Amino acid sequence: MSLSLVRFTRSNASPSWGLLQGGEIRPLSIPCTTTAALLAHSHAAIRASVQDSLLPLADNLQLLSPITRDAKVLCQGANYRQHMLDSGVDPDAKRFNMFFTKSSASIHDPVGSIVRPRHVQLLDYEVELTLVLGKATTSAVKVSAANLHEYVAGICIGNDVSARCVQIPQMQFHKGKSYRTFCPLGPVLCLLEPEEMHYLDDLQLSLTVNGEVRQQDSTANLVFKPAETLTEYSQIADFNPGDVIMTGTPSGCALGLPNPTVVRASAMLPDPVRFGLFLKAQLRRPQYLKNGDRVEVRIASRDGRLDLGVQRHTIVPEA
Amino acid sequence: MSLSLVRFTRSNASPSWGLLQGGEIRPLSIPCTTTAALLAHSHAAIRASVQDSLLPLADNLQLLSPITRDAKVLCQGANYRQHMLDSGVDPDAKRFNMFFTKSSASIHDPVGSIVRPRHVQLLDYEVELTLVLGKATTSAVKVSAANLHEYVAGICIGNDVSARCVQIPQMQFHKGKSYRTFCPLGPVLCLLEPEEMHYLDDLQLSLTVNGEVRQQDSTANLVFKPAETLTEYSQIADFNPGDVIMTGTPSGCALGLPNPTVVRASAMLPDPVRFGLFLKAQLRRPQYLKNGDRVEVRIASRDGRLDLGVQRHTIVPEA
Repeated sequence: MSLSLVRFTRSNASPSWGLLQGGEIRPLSIPCTTTAALLAHSHAAIRASVQDSLLPLADNLQLLSPITRDAKVLCQGANYRQHMLDSGVDPDAKRFNMFFTKSSASIHDPVGSIVRPRHVQLLDYEVELTLVLGKATTSAVKVSAANLHEYVAGICIGNDVSARCVQIPQMQFHKGKSYRTFCPLGPVLCLLEPEEMHYLDDLQLSLTVNGEVRQQDSTANLVFKPAETLTEYSQIADFNPGDVIMTGTPSGCALGLPNPTVVRASAMLPDPVRFGLFLKAQLRRPQYLKNGDRVEVRIASRDGRLDLGVQRHTIVPEA
Repeated sequence: MSLSLVRFTRSNASPSWGLLQGGEIRPLSIPCTTTAALLAHSHAAIRASVQDSLLPLADNLQLLSPITRDAKVLCQGANYRQHMLDSGVDPDAKRFNMFFTKSSASIHDPVGSIVRPRHVQLLDYEVELTLVLGKATTSAVKVSAANLHEYVAGICIGNDVSARCVQIPQMQFHKGKSYRTFCPLGPVLCLLEPEEMHYLDDLQLSLTVNGEVRQQDSTANLVFKPAETLTEYSQIADFNPGDVIMTGTPSGCALGLPNPTVVRASAMLPDPVRFGLFLKAQLRRPQYLKNGDRVEVRIASRDGRLDLGVQRHTIVPEA
């Protein structure tokens, strides 16, 4: 059975790992400073290290990202059927898998604040199933349903926070998505058994802003599935245990994509004019995150046996 | 005075570091497995570790990338005046600094083969001055001419090899530029003294294909200079010693950019049609790299006091 692990600190002590059970944490005696070091232990060794003491998930306990900042954050774009249809793209054509990276500096804790940089006007959210890699590779590999468990050690929630006013007018995924606090991960790092990998095919994702549901979908609607994505990503990246792949977001972001005909027509305009119009149109959309907004993100299996917990963040301005 | 270091192996022994002097290598006695570990030593300690033995730069000695694969490869796009003018962009407007990443898996030795993946039809080259970072940061920093030497430990040659048939039609910088062997670095890692930082402002870059000069420019024509680039990059990335920033390439690549009016007009076409036309037009350009082509890349100061050596590669098809 899967292991639901969390990373936490109390009174600013060094971070510890724990097993989450019924809303309480049992600390592990394994002292791992990185996710990679934790993943070097077998599930049996992790279970054997669970201590008897119980810590309630209370206020003086701070949940941390279960992915440490030595990890790479590999990402996929436009990977849900409805999101592609919204953008005027045929998901069945599967023309190409879109890859980009977020900086490790953007990795952030699962509960707390997301900081809007001073120059960012269009702040957006993206719930994403996040694969946590478990095997080191230095060459292209062929991943299939049969060996997927060798490459994917577990899963966690990710929010691919995005500054659309940087990403779109500057055509820069990396820059617009890499500011510090823009990649909250966790709280739960769920380590999977080989026979549980089928859960990846139908996990329920949801994201709310101030209690209003904005995104809700199932990983059944992923266009490029984990095995084929890992196969292609291994052509361009070395994998290390603890690295993550964020698998893309369903429809429902604040970003309002004009229909493809309008996009094509506006391409006739000089860049500054076109992007001025883009900014003006987007600023009218109330869905963008404002200071004080509360974002909650959940991922779980339909049967409730896998539950990756809840991310809770408030948007705050840069100090 | 600057230190010209190389990393090498003989008869497949473990990699060693050496000081390059007059075409010969004096090995260092410091056993550093990573660039970060090397940079933890002072220039004085490195000098003190130089051994008396001399190794000629001969065939049984293989030059390796002086940047090890634990490093991040941060990149800038469209950062030379003529390159921007060619693309119909006003370099004096300085609208934004374009950032993306190449994978660490693409880091490659400075002499040998560049492997064209089977599916890549449009293989291109880009000579780039590559900054080697020397200081760890975990927050935004203000870099100026006065403290640039604290952040930049040294420089090396980089070739930002690019699969244009992936990068342009898929709008993916990261994927199109991250295949293995697509980021040759070195041979020389030139560690600079604070009083030598002014050299960054006027280094001479050149790239030839089969002896024909394709790119030739000076870093005097960099639009976003190293200090302002580091300042902005530190907003989205943590720096670690040994990480690199590739500062963009001058005009002269194989990629033929149509004039902006044609680009805007063609935007009216559906994506597959537009990119079919792009591919067809580019395939007529003889400048793209073919199997067997020899690429040589050089960077040096006008006065010859800084010389980053020569990269020499032959294009080979994927096995």
